[in-house]
Formats: sequence, C-alpha cells, structure tokens
Amino acid sequence: MVNVKLFEETLNEEKIYQGKFINLVKQKVKLPDGKESTREIVRHPGAVAILAFIDEDTIIMVEQFRKPLDRILLEIPAGKLEKGEDIEKCGRRELEEETGYIAKDFTYLGKIATTPGFTDEYIYFYKAEDLHKGKIGGDEDEFINVKKISLNKVKEMIKSGEIIDGKTLAVFMLM
Amino acid sequence: MVNVKLFEETLNEEKIYQGKFINLVKQKVKLPDGKESTREIVRHPGAVAILAFIDEDTIIMVEQFRKPLDRILLEIPAGKLEKGEDIEKCGRRELEEETGYIAKDFTYLGKIATTPGFTDEYIYFYKAEDLHKGKIGGDEDEFINVKKISLNKVKEMIKSGEIIDGKTLAVFMLM
Repeated sequence: MVNVKLFEETLNEEKIYQGKFINLVKQKVKLPDGKESTREIVRHPGAVAILAFIDEDTIIMVEQFRKPLDRILLEIPAGKLEKGEDIEKCGRRELEEETGYIAKDFTYLGKIATTPGFTDEYIYFYKAEDLHKGKIGGDEDEFINVKKISLNKVKEMIKSGEIIDGKTLAVFMLM
Repeated sequence: MVNVKLFEETLNEEKIYQGKFINLVKQKVKLPDGKESTREIVRHPGAVAILAFIDEDTIIMVEQFRKPLDRILLEIPAGKLEKGEDIEKCGRRELEEETGYIAKDFTYLGKIATTPGFTDEYIYFYKAEDLHKGKIGGDEDEFINVKKISLNKVKEMIKSGEIIDGKTLAVFMLM
C-alpha cells in the first residue's frame, strides 16, 4: 500500500450532538479508491497545556479526577480554549486558575493532535518561567491538587506508569 | 485549592450515540463540594501503537489522511482494539496490516490516556524488533504510505513541528 493518494473527500456531514464542550458529527467520505465510508468525528475547541518551572529542576503538576477514566491523574496544567480566545492568553489564564501562578516568561513550544483518529483536538504547549503568585483562581467545576515535582521525578513516574497523561509525556519531546 | 477530595460520583448516565467505533454518553455527576455538573464522555475501545525498529537507528512510520483534521499525519503504526481482543495480538495484527512486517520481539512499553478530559481511550505501546516481511496487509478503509525514518530524523521532525501526532511524541518517553 505504498504511494497511494490519501485524500478523503467529504460527501456529507450529519450533526449528531452539540454539547457544552464537544460536538459529534458523522461524515460520509469518498475514499481514494472511490468507495464510500463513514467517519465519526468529535469536534473540540482545542486546549493549552503549560510546562511551568518553579525553578530550573522543578515543575508544577496538577492532580485531577478524570471522570472518563474514573480515576485521578497527575498532569501538567491545561485547559480548553474559549470561543475566539487567544492561545497564549488561554494558557496564562489556565495556569493562574489551576495553580495560582503568573509567568513573566511564556514561550510557545509546539502542538500535538491528541488522538487524530476521531477528534480535531489540538493541544498547544507553552513553557512558563519566572513565576510569581497571582490571585488564586479556581474553575467552578474543577477540583485540583497542585504539586511541585522535580523533572527527574516526573520522568521516573512516566517510566514507572504513575504518570500516563498523553500531553504530559508529549511535552518533554518539545523542550 | 489544595488537598480537597477529588472524587466525582455518577448520578446518572444518558446514552447519546452508539457508533461504529465510538459511543458518546452524558453523565450527571456530584462534585466534591456536593454541587452537580455534567460530563460529556466519548467511550473508545482503546488502541495499540508500535515503535517498530527496522534496525537500531531506524523505525517504521505511516503516513495517513486523518479526516478529523483534514490533513495527512506522519505517525507510528497503530490501530484500535477489536472487541475482546488481546492487546499484544492487536499490536501484532496492526503492525502487519499497516506495514507488512511481523516482529520476533514484541515488548510492552506502557500506556497513555490520550486526552482524559473527554475520553476513556488508552493507547498501549509496544516496541517491535527483529522484523521480517509477512504477507502484506491492508484494512479496507485505510490508505497508508509506509516510511522508514531514522530516529534522529523523527526527533528533528517532532521539534520542527512536522510530526504532531500525540502518541508518536509520547512513546519516546517510554523507551
């Protein structure tokens, strides 16, 4: 299956669900060989995640109950883009809301497609440095434990399977 | 917001959509402070991804049109778990179907939660070594270009933003 043309043309799109955060659509597509197939697509506003350094060896992590998995995960701070929101502004807002910190230096690192088989979600990454405490925030629906953990410990926890959040693994490839 | 209890209790669950690959449910949950909120959850069967070494410096990548993003992505080979399927067996099947290769050595590396804010999808990773050509495969709905790329080149392409697939970044933290 080498060097085939890959493009899939959208023949039609059915709106299945319009939710608070995500929308679900079903597309009929024309495959490269002319046959038809369906694609189930979750439309997501995108998100921003922040690798925030307290000092050069220590980052801020957040512990959160993740209802889809029914368990607590340890992750880098992150949050969804609001409609029309600037990406960097979202990152700064989420960092303060989730951790209470404001960063003087905020540097774009890159982005990932989280799981491109069924969603259009991108996560944009920033590195935050030179932090100081702002006014403590808190989304109404979010209950979060803030942790300061050394980079080496985070990398150990990834290898041991204690940290399994996809974006938290991915960001280290962009440092 | 430190040291709060984090658990969210499910009060009820409404089935929104049962699809070919994914299901969508909406849950009413009780937050740690007793208030109620809703969670939109995409249930996914999970997937297996393979870091397959042609030699010690070269891996197999696949180029695929990803309809949710309407673009081609370069990724490590991967595929969804079928109902009741053994995880390793799925990985071996997907490697052969997508690339034509069978591995003598197949080693479990770990797993990620791809995007735990809205889906229960896990991706399980394997390292495949000592490869030989099997009978060439091909899922009916998949059109794929197989590429052999050096590890250094893959890491460069991640840093430059040419590779943005989340699982492909994540797997290198588990090597």
